[in-house]
Amino acid sequence: MSTEKPLFHYDQSFPLYRGGELPRLRLAYETWGELNDDASNAILIFTGLSPGAHAASNELDPTPGWWEPMIGPGKAVDSERFFIICVNSLGSCKGSTGPASIEPGTGQPWRLRFPTLSIEDIAASTRLLLLDLGIKQLDTVIGPSMGGMTALAWLKLFPNATRRMINISSAMASSPYAIAIRSLQREAICTDNNWNNGQYDEETWPEDGMRFARKLGMISYRSAAEWQARFGREQQSQYPKTIYGMDFSVESYLENHARRFIGQFDPTCYIYLSHAMDWFDAGDKHSDAQTMMARSGLEKAMVIGIGTDALFPVWQQHEMADTLKRAGVDTQYYALDSVEGHDAFLIDHDHFNPLIRGFLV
Amino acid sequence: MSTEKPLFHYDQSFPLYRGGELPRLRLAYETWGELNDDASNAILIFTGLSPGAHAASNELDPTPGWWEPMIGPGKAVDSERFFIICVNSLGSCKGSTGPASIEPGTGQPWRLRFPTLSIEDIAASTRLLLLDLGIKQLDTVIGPSMGGMTALAWLKLFPNATRRMINISSAMASSPYAIAIRSLQREAICTDNNWNNGQYDEETWPEDGMRFARKLGMISYRSAAEWQARFGREQQSQYPKTIYGMDFSVESYLENHARRFIGQFDPTCYIYLSHAMDWFDAGDKHSDAQTMMARSGLEKAMVIGIGTDALFPVWQQHEMADTLKRAGVDTQYYALDSVEGHDAFLIDHDHFNPLIRGFLV
Repeated sequence: MSTEKPLFHYDQSFPLYRGGELPRLRLAYETWGELNDDASNAILIFTGLSPGAHAASNELDPTPGWWEPMIGPGKAVDSERFFIICVNSLGSCKGSTGPASIEPGTGQPWRLRFPTLSIEDIAASTRLLLLDLGIKQLDTVIGPSMGGMTALAWLKLFPNATRRMINISSAMASSPYAIAIRSLQREAICTDNNWNNGQYDEETWPEDGMRFARKLGMISYRSAAEWQARFGREQQSQYPKTIYGMDFSVESYLENHARRFIGQFDPTCYIYLSHAMDWFDAGDKHSDAQTMMARSGLEKAMVIGIGTDALFPVWQQHEMADTLKRAGVDTQYYALDSVEGHDAFLIDHDHFNPLIRGFLV
Repeated sequence: MSTEKPLFHYDQSFPLYRGGELPRLRLAYETWGELNDDASNAILIFTGLSPGAHAASNELDPTPGWWEPMIGPGKAVDSERFFIICVNSLGSCKGSTGPASIEPGTGQPWRLRFPTLSIEDIAASTRLLLLDLGIKQLDTVIGPSMGGMTALAWLKLFPNATRRMINISSAMASSPYAIAIRSLQREAICTDNNWNNGQYDEETWPEDGMRFARKLGMISYRSAAEWQARFGREQQSQYPKTIYGMDFSVESYLENHARRFIGQFDPTCYIYLSHAMDWFDAGDKHSDAQTMMARSGLEKAMVIGIGTDALFPVWQQHEMADTLKRAGVDTQYYALDSVEGHDAFLIDHDHFNPLIRGFLV
């Protein structure tokens, strides 16, 4: 058995949804469990913007993954019953081809020469991986946040490519509020003096911009109610005070998150994925999202939203569930009373576990 | 009659709430109506962070003010009955002494040499102005947003200095969410290369930081619901597209607001006032806010909150009203169903007008 994490190589030209092409591509992915004989027990997990394919510990990597309590033997997404695949999104920087990858023939990273990336390209490239693994139809596609959009793109591009879907804290299209937040994150990166139109290197990384993007991200991922209970007006002593702040615990909390993120994620990849979310529309190239869903061959869906989510507010999941129902899909909709906001799927396992376990039975 | 807007000069040392002092100070203010013989019909309006003293048109300045539909003859705050004063906050840059003012004896702006500013200092400096005008006790103090905090500071510092209070979209202390937003606004300004530790000038103004602070401000001042109805996924053509965005109308809307703000407000003043809001606590130097309110001599209060306000969420106004009631103040509390978020008091006059008119009868 290999001790290297698997990589899927596709060495042909890959046309992109909004024009342009990649001469070849690579996807990093991880798996749990075994594919059955008729390749009918596969579950595909698309991720949010920043996580990689390491959704849970496995033989190749025993460290905890980003959805550790949910995936594994006997867990809600049960690796004793299902063959589970999680893929690092095309355009990301955690093993898959993206703007941080070397552009063939140049020896230099793609950066801004990378063609326009769409959520549909993440779905389409993953389709190639799944076909390579011998999987034509999924049992279930699962996606939280950006991954929920990618799951909808999967339905749109590949009818009958999944029987079921679990769509978490996502939307059929971004709201102006979410676009405003993401636009400001991108602006912070691109106005960092070190951004230099994408010509940064490890010595001249746009750290201030990335710090800012992550802090604004955390503000939009969590809820005011959670922070009120957790921090109140508690003061912090971890960092020295600055002219701009560092008086209160909520400020050191954001700083800690920002410091962990800065070196982990490539700024150009961040901008490409962030834009892709703005542009996504489940219904485009069809008359509308309902028509797309009706043509998708989807049999059953579960849509989960969180009352405290500001970035993907619960009315968007409600709208998605209603559209699925009108399209004839057997749909369960849950609006959860969690204080954790958009990030609840990463934290509030007590709420999510029974729902997902129950759906997959 | 003078055609110059009035300025109050106080030429003695002014001690500040958290230490330090100003050798002298100046406050810009505007008035509407006439003070009656026993000086009992005065209404004082404290402002939010950015507006100046020009709350409404008057003989000295016929241009519309920031609360134009609310103040004037026959309006809810009726200048035929009341003598109305609006003051530019100490620490601001619209005529009053602040970090952008020239430091006596140096010929240079104060900038970061300005002592620590507190909300209480805005109240205490305005008290000097009111005494100079011959007003010992107000009929009503009115404050929205930061001005609501300043109204509470007025109660705290000067018992029996007002009989009534209208407190709008404010709080007894900032929530961690509001602190996080403001901390990030300040960080954006202070990481702008032009910030230069406060040593900017008109040629090297920290425009990117101020643009960012204003855009994040607008995101926190309005509501996702308003933008959904107003912009949806409408695209914009006013500005050329950039690497970070300018695809959608919500982005050009934010850019327009940012451009109007950049040159209007001094970055250092912004940072001082923003910090002062973080630090404010209605109950400090007393055992708690209720004790302070019970000692304030306040007879009657109206507290107004907005269900869609993310920055000063409605539970904070509810808490303020409950505390006033427990302190024995005759209190009316209104949670308004307005889509306009924190800025509703500047926009949703149909909701506010009857309430304020009714209270002041």
